Amino acid sequence: MTETLMRGIFAPVVTAFHQSREIDSDRSIAHCRWLLDHGCDGLVVFGTTSEANSLSLLERKRLLEAIVGSGISPAQLLVGNGACALPDAVDLATHALQIGCGGVLMLPPFYYKAVSVDGLFAFFAEFIDRVADPRLRVYLYHIPPVAQVGIPLTLIEKLSARYGRLVAGIKDSSGDWENTRRLLTEFTEIQVFPGSEAFLLPALRLGAAGCISGTANVGAETMQQLYQNWQTAKAEEIQSKLNRVREIFQRYPIIGAVKAVLAAANDDDSWRYVRPPLSPLSDPDSKVLMRELEGLEFQLPKF
Amino acid sequence: MTETLMRGIFAPVVTAFHQSREIDSDRSIAHCRWLLDHGCDGLVVFGTTSEANSLSLLERKRLLEAIVGSGISPAQLLVGNGACALPDAVDLATHALQIGCGGVLMLPPFYYKAVSVDGLFAFFAEFIDRVADPRLRVYLYHIPPVAQVGIPLTLIEKLSARYGRLVAGIKDSSGDWENTRRLLTEFTEIQVFPGSEAFLLPALRLGAAGCISGTANVGAETMQQLYQNWQTAKAEEIQSKLNRVREIFQRYPIIGAVKAVLAAANDDDSWRYVRPPLSPLSDPDSKVLMRELEGLEFQLPKF
Repeated sequence: MTETLMRGIFAPVVTAFHQSREIDSDRSIAHCRWLLDHGCDGLVVFGTTSEANSLSLLERKRLLEAIVGSGISPAQLLVGNGACALPDAVDLATHALQIGCGGVLMLPPFYYKAVSVDGLFAFFAEFIDRVADPRLRVYLYHIPPVAQVGIPLTLIEKLSARYGRLVAGIKDSSGDWENTRRLLTEFTEIQVFPGSEAFLLPALRLGAAGCISGTANVGAETMQQLYQNWQTAKAEEIQSKLNRVREIFQRYPIIGAVKAVLAAANDDDSWRYVRPPLSPLSDPDSKVLMRELEGLEFQLPKF
Repeated sequence: MTETLMRGIFAPVVTAFHQSREIDSDRSIAHCRWLLDHGCDGLVVFGTTSEANSLSLLERKRLLEAIVGSGISPAQLLVGNGACALPDAVDLATHALQIGCGGVLMLPPFYYKAVSVDGLFAFFAEFIDRVADPRLRVYLYHIPPVAQVGIPLTLIEKLSARYGRLVAGIKDSSGDWENTRRLLTEFTEIQVFPGSEAFLLPALRLGAAGCISGTANVGAETMQQLYQNWQTAKAEEIQSKLNRVREIFQRYPIIGAVKAVLAAANDDDSWRYVRPPLSPLSDPDSKVLMRELEGLEFQLPKF
């Protein structure tokens, strides 16, 4: 049995597309490799930044196979498993387990709003019961600004009480430090990843497992420096640098911005393709973004 | 070529489940038949009230095949086509067209928030271009209280300008009469269905094509009376009766409430099954609901 507890800096990797908006596995994998060589301990495939919810279930399975087939260890992958329909979530997680990925990052079902904690519990419980695999490790994905439906603390309590270490962690992308703080101090049995590096140092001081952030697609090395040096005198300075980078990215939609940087750094405009309903960053915005990043000591992802 | 313009009273049919929460096609179809015999001009299969977003793509295809296979005319069906991922929307619509259903009721992609009108336009345009079938008729589904992402009026303008009558109509479940009024008066080339019978009489007076409402699962006959008599002296009285029924249902989550009524009327508790994250209506609430409905002259769906 592979233990798949995740720790460290994770990038929710952007997905590369051809001009037709079909998935470009080769470029996607090249980016994955670069990230693992430049600061990432692991990758979230099919996170929000991956445009995962714009990919069909079959496309996700094929890309996951291609990534693992390329030699990237499945133990380093957290498989994003966002689905409104329970059968889809069970299907993708079962497939992920078959190819060696035990860790799944699960959104709550996000179409119906104002659902009860009991209803959410029933969804996750039925998911775990149906997957029925002791290797499964569920990382809950709390991102109310996008999904609208969140992961209430009482839901984690109920799930942990029933499933123990199968409920392994949470990514908190609420942007609400108080929520992250409560997770870190009141839910010490699960691994807590803030969804923003802006909280990385205070979170590590409270025992965070690491960080999963969209900007790790371009800035994982600095995050890794902080992850390794958070108890040293350099910590505050590294956090300040992270904050400066994040402030720049926060002015733009994150997916378009990350892809614009990849396009500029690799002199390859095809990196800018996104699937609708998202739009690529405009030319002028891309130029301003690159100029802003120039001022920082910051290795761009070039492969 | 079948012209599939839809008019009249449509129920977004609830989906029956077995105790295992697998789809019960037989009971679902029995309910469809009852509705067509009791006031419905047509049915929306896979609407919000159908728990469509809790069904996998394959489940939706199989149920659609079963409904059409049972002898219900595909020309009476509007196929709900809610998907975050474009390939899924294209897949289901292509399947629907293959079995004779030209009309699809399309949600906007609803995971990513704060997307631009251009991004939404690109989604719908690519959908229509990929389906590439002159029989396709797209009915846009505007339900911001649930999907959060809506259908802005400028999006309809742009889609109609490019695709003409392929963009056939809209269901407006905003609950915002001003939006419905603008649709009816400024977008006369498309068919407008209010998503609530509370607006049926004023909407018919401005040229509405009919109504698509969750409560039509149990109250379509009264809606049909109004649809046929809106220009008569009885119209206001029928609208008042519809309002009384709606006021009762609005106190409860609509899906649980409709299923509770079906369970009570048919003395069959299996009608109450919903898929998580939804929850069935509680026993006490079900009893109160049935008592409230008793006071009204109201034929319950019994088959």
